[in-house]
Amino acid sequence: MFGGPITVLMVNEYPDYIDARVWAAELKTRVPQLEFRLWPDAGNKRDIDIVLIDKGASPGFFDAMTGLSAVVYLGAGVEGIDLQSFPKGVPLIRLATREQASEVVQYIVLRVLCQQRHVADYMSLQARKSWTPLAPRKISETKIVVLGAGRIGGWAAKLFADLGYDTAVWSRHRKTLPGIHSYIGRAQLADALTSRDYVICSLPLTGDTRGILNASAFGEMKRGAYLVNVGRGAHVNEADLIRALDEGQLSGACLDVFEREPLEASSPLWTHPKVTITPHVASFWMDSGIDQAADLCGQVARGEPLSNKIDLERGY
Amino acid sequence: MFGGPITVLMVNEYPDYIDARVWAAELKTRVPQLEFRLWPDAGNKRDIDIVLIDKGASPGFFDAMTGLSAVVYLGAGVEGIDLQSFPKGVPLIRLATREQASEVVQYIVLRVLCQQRHVADYMSLQARKSWTPLAPRKISETKIVVLGAGRIGGWAAKLFADLGYDTAVWSRHRKTLPGIHSYIGRAQLADALTSRDYVICSLPLTGDTRGILNASAFGEMKRGAYLVNVGRGAHVNEADLIRALDEGQLSGACLDVFEREPLEASSPLWTHPKVTITPHVASFWMDSGIDQAADLCGQVARGEPLSNKIDLERGY
Ligand SMILES: NC(=O)c1ccc[n+]([C@@H]2O[C@H](COP(=O)([O-])OP(=O)(O)OC[C@H]3O[C@@H](n4cnc5c(N)ncnc54)[C@H](OP(=O)(O)O)[C@@H]3O)[C@@H](O)[C@H]2O)c1
Ligand SMILES: NC(=O)c1ccc[n+]([C@@H]2O[C@H](COP(=O)([O-])OP(=O)(O)OC[C@H]3O[C@@H](n4cnc5c(N)ncnc54)[C@H](OP(=O)(O)O)[C@@H]3O)[C@@H](O)[C@H]2O)c1
Repeated sequence: MFGGPITVLMVNEYPDYIDARVWAAELKTRVPQLEFRLWPDAGNKRDIDIVLIDKGASPGFFDAMTGLSAVVYLGAGVEGIDLQSFPKGVPLIRLATREQASEVVQYIVLRVLCQQRHVADYMSLQARKSWTPLAPRKISETKIVVLGAGRIGGWAAKLFADLGYDTAVWSRHRKTLPGIHSYIGRAQLADALTSRDYVICSLPLTGDTRGILNASAFGEMKRGAYLVNVGRGAHVNEADLIRALDEGQLSGACLDVFEREPLEASSPLWTHPKVTITPHVASFWMDSGIDQAADLCGQVARGEPLSNKIDLERGY
Repeated sequence: MFGGPITVLMVNEYPDYIDARVWAAELKTRVPQLEFRLWPDAGNKRDIDIVLIDKGASPGFFDAMTGLSAVVYLGAGVEGIDLQSFPKGVPLIRLATREQASEVVQYIVLRVLCQQRHVADYMSLQARKSWTPLAPRKISETKIVVLGAGRIGGWAAKLFADLGYDTAVWSRHRKTLPGIHSYIGRAQLADALTSRDYVICSLPLTGDTRGILNASAFGEMKRGAYLVNVGRGAHVNEADLIRALDEGQLSGACLDVFEREPLEASSPLWTHPKVTITPHVASFWMDSGIDQAADLCGQVARGEPLSNKIDLERGY
């Protein structure tokens, strides 16, 4: 199946999430001619075909790797990589598996439904042995917008639309998803936000999207809208968010990502009664990435076009 | 669109859920020649074409209604109607709208994901300002079976399969749903249950399904399986369920329906640490039934075959 040897160098700074020994063993099973090296034991850097990296690279890191075919960032967003200093002409790949996208889609659906179906309230009612039906908002009267209509956002939007929700997406390029309204570009952001009961952020963090969820955006939203952020913490202006919640402009927010992670104990978000916090777990398992890395070895060995390449220009 | 006059009699014993005035107004808007009567003001019973009923009928209730074209039970399961004494030859219709099915499908997905994604645990962790990622079971290693593969169960199964779960259904007739294993009949119930992490009950209550979730069924399940019941309370033997939970055979159960509703304050289910209770709200809104009732008026007026007929023999 594969041609000559493939040398893979792994940089593993988050061993709690990614176990390099498991990756080494699994990759060798799938790609017999693979040579696996674990940073800092890089050996002769000129041998290296593929770098797997779960953190940003220090300046000059790639310098001596003259045979490099691809760098795989073992995360969904590549904002940890300095794209300015990234070696010209080397493809940068991101982790993007169906399992990962499904995890995030499920997180989004879960968090909208927790809100829609009063999960926390029913817990309190059960504690008081109180049989009290609480009306959910009618599906046919609930409007959702998903910011970002890629692997995650597009899938979540289709799922909501199929369940009967009035669903829209906002992205850079127009989408043709049956029954889903497609808004594009900054000029249509206000239209995308207005009148929506749920605003989901599944954007990548780029120069264009940083801080996009700020006082101005909250002001465009329907009064009482609920925010779910699975993009990146820096999409949200946290001070503006707290103000919008306190003023009742937003009814609540569920945040999986934060400007600084772990979220500091001093953050007012932890105790805000309208905020739900999860510790960056919308996607959790990285090991579906092993299959993706093995596929990539095959693409490199056969000289095929590589999947899931980042466009360094646009930043995602 | 419609021929002669259509006389509808509504029996409205649950005005908290179904507002007869709203139904009267909405039905008259949709069906101009409709005459609406509200029980007990039935008028001349021989005029009545359609009965809308949200409760069981007392014996002899239908006796003088010689022109009856259909009875619509305003609930999803018809076990409240005595099928033995039901007038021969009169079609019994149940409420079955896409919005209703979607509500129940969402309830099922929500409850599986609350479990899978540790919603209650994250609430406690947030209260302690603790940033503690908790591993969900991997999607690819999670197995789900849905008992009942009809409007609700079939839809839920397709949704889980699409998200990547190993999904099976159990029903009377074989189903061909892509990627979903179909088990049929009592002989295959044990096979359907074994090895599944989640067991969802979306069955109708009939002579064949009453008490189906008992000690024997729990014994067939994988140790630590989680039960979600949106069928009817009488599907579950509550004493057997509590024993299975206490012995650790089941890890938990989410129950929306009970033998007696409202659930009595004395029920040990209320305070069981592994039980989640909701007050029969998997589907909540009945007013999508107005459209269905209007469609039925049209079918009756035009002499067309009627949708969503109950098979009195099989009981659903
Ligand atoms: N919390 C977590 O655990 C977790 C896990 C995975 C991913 N994520 C986050 O989710 C993000 C999205 O992942 P994905 O796989 O869905 O990415 P993707 O497939 O690349 O989709 C990105 C979407 O965002 C849109 N977009 C980008 N810049 C935009 C702009 N300036 N204005 C409007 N729309 C813009 C793109 O529009 P076009 O379609 O028009 O190009 C595209 O629809 C990741 O970058 C990561 O930050 C978080
Ligand atoms: N909690 C709530 O708020 C709520 C709301 C709505 C409905 N429900 C409950 O959900 C039930 C199902 O609703 P639905 O609309 O999905 O009904 P449906 O479309 O009639 O589907 C019923 C399914 O159950 C299967 N089934 C019936 N008897 C069986 C048996 N003896 N063995 C194996 N499978 C059997 C049927 O098999 P075949 O396909 O082979 O015929 C069918 O797949 C309702 O009857 C009601 O009790 C509850």
